[in-house]
Amino acid sequence: MFVLGIDPGLTRTGFGVLAVGRGVPRVVTAGVLHTSPDDPAPQRLAELHRDLLELIEETSPQVMALERVFIRRNITNAMTVARASGIAMLAAAESGIPVREYTPTAVKLAVAGDGNADKAQVASLVSRRLRLEALDGPADLADALAVALCHAQQSRIEEAVS
Amino acid sequence: MFVLGIDPGLTRTGFGVLAVGRGVPRVVTAGVLHTSPDDPAPQRLAELHRDLLELIEETSPQVMALERVFIRRNITNAMTVARASGIAMLAAAESGIPVREYTPTAVKLAVAGDGNADKAQVASLVSRRLRLEALDGPADLADALAVALCHAQQSRIEEAVS
Repeated sequence: MFVLGIDPGLTRTGFGVLAVGRGVPRVVTAGVLHTSPDDPAPQRLAELHRDLLELIEETSPQVMALERVFIRRNITNAMTVARASGIAMLAAAESGIPVREYTPTAVKLAVAGDGNADKAQVASLVSRRLRLEALDGPADLADALAVALCHAQQSRIEEAVS
Repeated sequence: MFVLGIDPGLTRTGFGVLAVGRGVPRVVTAGVLHTSPDDPAPQRLAELHRDLLELIEETSPQVMALERVFIRRNITNAMTVARASGIAMLAAAESGIPVREYTPTAVKLAVAGDGNADKAQVASLVSRRLRLEALDGPADLADALAVALCHAQQSRIEEAVS
């Protein structure tokens, strides 16, 4: 099973595709989709939409694991992230794959065993668990792999108890 | 100029197209796009996306006037509305028309001269200013016509002072 993890954002959307089987999940591809803050928001959402459709077509995941928008201090930013997450959901629906949403706390619990783990801890555990040399990329990339790993783990737990 | 006013939402998105010229703006069409709360959010966003593209194609507006998401009490609902507004922005960008956003306060000020006007006052003034018999439809419809009217008024004011 291929799981596409998405950490949505308008300026940067992290993505990571994991091949999930019996052993250690394998990273198929991972990266960050960018849009320019100089462009109007509608154009940026359209660019993100095209990039996500292309990514799904190229990698053929069976499911999208999406980090749920979480409001901290900056409400305007949360609104922008919510728009980007709506575009991610749309791309999944148009591509015929289901979406599973996970809160940041659920992702941290699944990956680090600690719902309060900080970004560095999450990135470090993601790279160890995926047997990567290091995760040097931006936090969005580690977060995208983390939500994909969270879904992979949850679906195996669900299989194991059912 | 045709102005498409949009009051975004996942369950109900209000729309209203105004033909704006020298006299009183004329209502070309107005209504509400629905999606079912029984369907998963990604499917609902995809349905809204298709309906909006179809609406823009059928009515050929030159601009979309969009009510800006505003957080009141219900943050979860605001996130849902933000996703729907992202879909509206996407549909505008894909159709090659610009988007102008207006806060609820700006809309109320433009339409009713009072940023704290309630929904009934706004609906009543919208119907009077557009010379409609009455605005019996849901609030989303009146709100969509209100944001279209707000944009029509603002663009005429901008023309007059430039």
